[in-house]
Amino acid sequence: MPKQIGSSIRMEHPPKVTSYAAIVGSKEGEGPLGRCFDRVEQDPYFGEKNWEKAESRLQSDTLALALRKGILHNADLDCIVAGDLIDQCTGSSFAVRETGVPYLGVYGACSTMAEALLTAGILTDSGCCRRAAAVTSSHFSTAERQFRFPLSYGGQRTPTAQWTCTASGAAVVSATGEGAALSGGCIGRVCDLGVTDANNMGAAMAPAAADTIQRYLTDTCTKPEDYDAIVTGDLGNVGSPLLIDLLLKQGIDISKVHKDCGMLMFDDKAQDTHAGGSGCGCSASILCAYFLPKLHSGSLRRILFAATGALLSAMSPQQGESIPTISHLVELTA
Amino acid sequence: MPKQIGSSIRMEHPPKVTSYAAIVGSKEGEGPLGRCFDRVEQDPYFGEKNWEKAESRLQSDTLALALRKGILHNADLDCIVAGDLIDQCTGSSFAVRETGVPYLGVYGACSTMAEALLTAGILTDSGCCRRAAAVTSSHFSTAERQFRFPLSYGGQRTPTAQWTCTASGAAVVSATGEGAALSGGCIGRVCDLGVTDANNMGAAMAPAAADTIQRYLTDTCTKPEDYDAIVTGDLGNVGSPLLIDLLLKQGIDISKVHKDCGMLMFDDKAQDTHAGGSGCGCSASILCAYFLPKLHSGSLRRILFAATGALLSAMSPQQGESIPTISHLVELTA
Repeated sequence: MPKQIGSSIRMEHPPKVTSYAAIVGSKEGEGPLGRCFDRVEQDPYFGEKNWEKAESRLQSDTLALALRKGILHNADLDCIVAGDLIDQCTGSSFAVRETGVPYLGVYGACSTMAEALLTAGILTDSGCCRRAAAVTSSHFSTAERQFRFPLSYGGQRTPTAQWTCTASGAAVVSATGEGAALSGGCIGRVCDLGVTDANNMGAAMAPAAADTIQRYLTDTCTKPEDYDAIVTGDLGNVGSPLLIDLLLKQGIDISKVHKDCGMLMFDDKAQDTHAGGSGCGCSASILCAYFLPKLHSGSLRRILFAATGALLSAMSPQQGESIPTISHLVELTA
Repeated sequence: MPKQIGSSIRMEHPPKVTSYAAIVGSKEGEGPLGRCFDRVEQDPYFGEKNWEKAESRLQSDTLALALRKGILHNADLDCIVAGDLIDQCTGSSFAVRETGVPYLGVYGACSTMAEALLTAGILTDSGCCRRAAAVTSSHFSTAERQFRFPLSYGGQRTPTAQWTCTASGAAVVSATGEGAALSGGCIGRVCDLGVTDANNMGAAMAPAAADTIQRYLTDTCTKPEDYDAIVTGDLGNVGSPLLIDLLLKQGIDISKVHKDCGMLMFDDKAQDTHAGGSGCGCSASILCAYFLPKLHSGSLRRILFAATGALLSAMSPQQGESIPTISHLVELTA
C-alpha cells in the first residue's frame, strides 16, 4: 500500500517493472544511444498513411513488444496508463483501441511517462490492479504539424529549440515478479516563472524539475549522493544547467549525478538538434532502453526519474500566455 | 485500501465527497436544472479576454467555490486531478497554475469527471493523499473554435449533434469527513464500433457505457434495481435509447433507473439543442449540482455515475478514422 510522506509517496511493497521496450525513429537510432533501443524504424510512417496513425502504430508496437519481452498478453494487463502530445491524446487512444484493456488517459506533456509510471505504480501497489502498463509516445512530424505548422520556408530553429523525438517507451508494472522496484514518487506542481518563448522550453521547465526533486529529497530525507543518477526528462542543454543552478541555490548539488534524457538522445554537433531532444517519447524511450536495463543488470542501484513537461498548446503563446510546466517523479531501485 | 474485483475496484474504506460546486453559463442556467447550479455566469468570457482564458477561469472559480463550501483552502489539498477538452488540456493546467497543489492531468474526453473522481478516490483510499479534488470543464466557444472551426455560414447542425456545455464541476474527495461515499468504480475500455459521424457521438459512446456498466454490475453482483439511478455522462437522446437496448440484449434492464446528464441539461424544444448537452463540464456540473446534493440529503441512496467520452480529435475524422469511445464509472452512496 502506498504511504504519503509530506507531499511525496512511498510504496510499502514496491511494485516491479517486470518488462519494458523502446522503439525509435531513424534519427534517434543514429544518436549516441542508438544501439540500446529494441527497434529503430527507418520508415517514418511506420507503414501507415499519415503521421498521426504512424504515432499510434509506434505506441501500440512498443506496448506489444514490452508485453512480448515479458511473455505477457493484453489479457494479462488490468490497466494501460498512456498519453502523448497529439490533440485530445489520440496517439494513445487509437493505440490502445484494439487491446481490450481498461485505459486511463493521462496528460503531462513531456512529463507524461513519469505520470503514467507513478499512476501504474499506485494502481498496483494499492491493489486496484495486479499488472498495469505505462506507455507514451511522440513523433517529430505530428508535433511539427501541430505545434509549428505552417512551417516557414527556410525558417531557422533558434539555438534553444529542442527536437521532438520520434520515440516510444512502454513499461509493465506488476505487484509481483522480477525487475526494478518502483519504490516511490512525487506528483508535480505547476510552475510558471513567466517564460513565454515556446522555443525555450528547457528554461521554462527547469523550475518545475527543481521543485519536484527538492520536495522528494526533503520528504524522503535523502541527498543526491544517495542516488546513482537523477534523471530529468528533457531539459536539454539550456534547461539542465539552470536546474543545477536552481538546486544549488537551495544547497542541493546534483551536478555529479544529473543526467538529462534530452541531452542523451542526440549528438547535437553531428545531428544539428540544437538544445536536445524532447517529446513524451524522449524520456520514455531512454528510460526503457538505457536506465531500466542498467537497473536490471545492477550497474545502477537507485535512480530518480523526473520527467518534465511544458503544458502549453499551439494557441496559448499566441494569446500572450507564459508556459506552465510540471515535473512528475518516480524512484526506481535495483 | 482499494480492492480489485474482476475488472472493477471496490474501496474498503470508501472516501467521502465532502464538498462540491458547479458553475455554468447562461444557456445552461436557462435549462431545467438552472436553479441547482451554484452560479450561473451571464458573461461568456467570465471576465477574461478570450474563450480559452474564460474556460480556465470557469474551472478555477469552480474549484475555489468547492473548497470554500467545504471551508477548505488550496493548502488542504494534496492533489488536483483535472482535465478538459482543449488541446493539450490547457483549460486545466492554466486553471490550477496558481494553486501550488500537485496536479495530475487526465484525459477521457467527456468521461473525464468520472476518471478524475475515480483517480481521486484511489489516491485517497490508498493513502497517497488525505484529500484530492476532481475538476473538469468545457466551454461552448472553445469547443466550437477547436472542433468545428471554420463555421460555415448558415450551417445546419444535424439532429444527432450535441451542444457542448459551458460548465464546470468540482468535487473534493477526502479520506475522512461527511458526504457521499465513493465506494467503487470501473476503469473504461476503449470501444469503437465504427461510427464515423462526429455529429453523432451519442451513438458512438453508447457501447462504451454498456461495456463499463455491465462489467461493474457483474463484478459487484448487483442489479439495476439495487441503484436509485444509473447516470450516464452525455449520451443525449440518441445514445440513451441505444444504451438501454444494448444492455437489454444482455438481459440487463436499466430503463427504470437510467438518467443521462446530456438529456437533463437542456430543454431541447425550448432551447434548440438537438440531441442534448455534452462536454467534460456537462456531466461534472450535473453531478455536482443535482446528484451529489440528493445523495447528501438522502433522497438518493446509491447511484452509478458513468460518464462517457468520445476520444476523437478535430483531425481524426478527416483522416477517415472512426470514433473510439470510453466510459469510466464511479459508485456513490449516501
